[in-house]
Amino acid sequence: MIGVDWGISSMRAYRLHERRVVERLEQPHGILTVRDGRFDDALRTVIQPWLADGEDRILLSGMIGSRHGWREAVAVPCPAGVGEVAASLGEVAFDGARVRLVPGVTDADDDGTPEIMRGEETQILGAEIGTGIACLPGSHSKWARVVDGRITRFATYLTGEIYAAIRDHTILARQMLGGPGVGAAFDAGVTRSADPGGVLHHLFGVRSMGLAGRLQDADSASYLSGLLIGHEVRVALRSADDVWVIGSAPLSALYARVIAACGGEARVGDCDAAAHGLGMIAERAQWT
Amino acid sequence: MIGVDWGISSMRAYRLHERRVVERLEQPHGILTVRDGRFDDALRTVIQPWLADGEDRILLSGMIGSRHGWREAVAVPCPAGVGEVAASLGEVAFDGARVRLVPGVTDADDDGTPEIMRGEETQILGAEIGTGIACLPGSHSKWARVVDGRITRFATYLTGEIYAAIRDHTILARQMLGGPGVGAAFDAGVTRSADPGGVLHHLFGVRSMGLAGRLQDADSASYLSGLLIGHEVRVALRSADDVWVIGSAPLSALYARVIAACGGEARVGDCDAAAHGLGMIAERAQWT
Repeated sequence: MIGVDWGISSMRAYRLHERRVVERLEQPHGILTVRDGRFDDALRTVIQPWLADGEDRILLSGMIGSRHGWREAVAVPCPAGVGEVAASLGEVAFDGARVRLVPGVTDADDDGTPEIMRGEETQILGAEIGTGIACLPGSHSKWARVVDGRITRFATYLTGEIYAAIRDHTILARQMLGGPGVGAAFDAGVTRSADPGGVLHHLFGVRSMGLAGRLQDADSASYLSGLLIGHEVRVALRSADDVWVIGSAPLSALYARVIAACGGEARVGDCDAAAHGLGMIAERAQWT
Repeated sequence: MIGVDWGISSMRAYRLHERRVVERLEQPHGILTVRDGRFDDALRTVIQPWLADGEDRILLSGMIGSRHGWREAVAVPCPAGVGEVAASLGEVAFDGARVRLVPGVTDADDDGTPEIMRGEETQILGAEIGTGIACLPGSHSKWARVVDGRITRFATYLTGEIYAAIRDHTILARQMLGGPGVGAAFDAGVTRSADPGGVLHHLFGVRSMGLAGRLQDADSASYLSGLLIGHEVRVALRSADDVWVIGSAPLSALYARVIAACGGEARVGDCDAAAHGLGMIAERAQWT
């Protein structure tokens, strides 16, 4: 079968044999780059060789199943495991193969503010963490509680997106001369996030320490990154939580470091979690 | 005498007679618009008629006294009242009048993170609040504790700057079709800021509620504004604090509304506080 994790800015296609990745392709063809809704053409271009080879079952996860994608697949509410997700696949027409869409998962805060994920549910289920906490760092970080293989609660943090906006579009931008990275400045930002005053106050410290010569321009992005991730982790983490971090290696390393600094136990999960999840869901759904 | 509140983006000049404003000029000629360091020319152009009339004492406050301004006036540490500030005026050469610079005021958080204000100290002292809390909303909001007319502690919040960066440069930008304003959406944002989860999580709600049709695009900027000001006020305000809000009328009204919603008592201060402060400091300094 073919599994595709198709998001806003990238497309990761896997050829799978019994959940094992036998071939992979990664393209910058996120759904925003597809013109005139020709998702079928975009998909065909990428997986043509596999189709020619006889593959005819294709499962797509991610924002491709949103209203901005090929077709909206109605998201399923928490608690959601492989069974619930596999029972609610969306469907699109595609000549030459049977294409299905993994639905997203929804939740709500206690006050009713809605939550939604599209794509991360496949990664979380594919990571097979059993019972525990999953953290998926990114522009929109997700923290999910998983009980017996089902996602029972989750919350989103806009950390990566806010980091980029602050770094590029505030008065702090002029002192962001280095890239982010792990080091003393990153750790100082993480430490600072534990202080009283809140993140809106702590952000001014980036400027005031820069003015006072106590934070170098080369270190400012690292400090900012540590400060924001620190604020996210301190809210999301319950002490002694055992957290599986699932995501790209560099970002996972940053989050694992902060989780440990905040008293949690971080384990970096399988970076092929999306592929495994696609295979598991396809196996369960057994569509023909 | 002549008093000038000269900041990053604007210049407010006052002709004062015994602290009373007898004439005023407001120009968009903030210090960033002055070319080649010719602050003397920029000042002369604005106050020429008053100089010709015989005024010869000029006191400047604000970022004009920073390293990015005419000349850096060394800031004085808290606690700082009219006496401390008047004893530390900076000086610049200017033919035809005696020009002095109000120094800024510095403080530090418990962990040593530095704080600085330039210009707000003059507004706070000019508001003559005696003992209480002063809140000066803006791109970089200041909250100061004043005891017997002296600023004893203060903290800065980057709220206005973060608001603008989020509104214009994140995924939320596409739904910011209205301006900010007071209304049900603003109040909903303020209410949301009291929930657990932190501001980085609450910001995702702007998007998820938009997707769910529960927040209209026309209301999104108001909600965002209420959410961010709510987070600032909840950190800065101690319950039952009596707060003087000093600033522009529209922004002061927003802050007063949030302070009241958070259990504080808000009074909107004199909008000529800067002019009064300049007059008080000049009186005390009595330079010749």
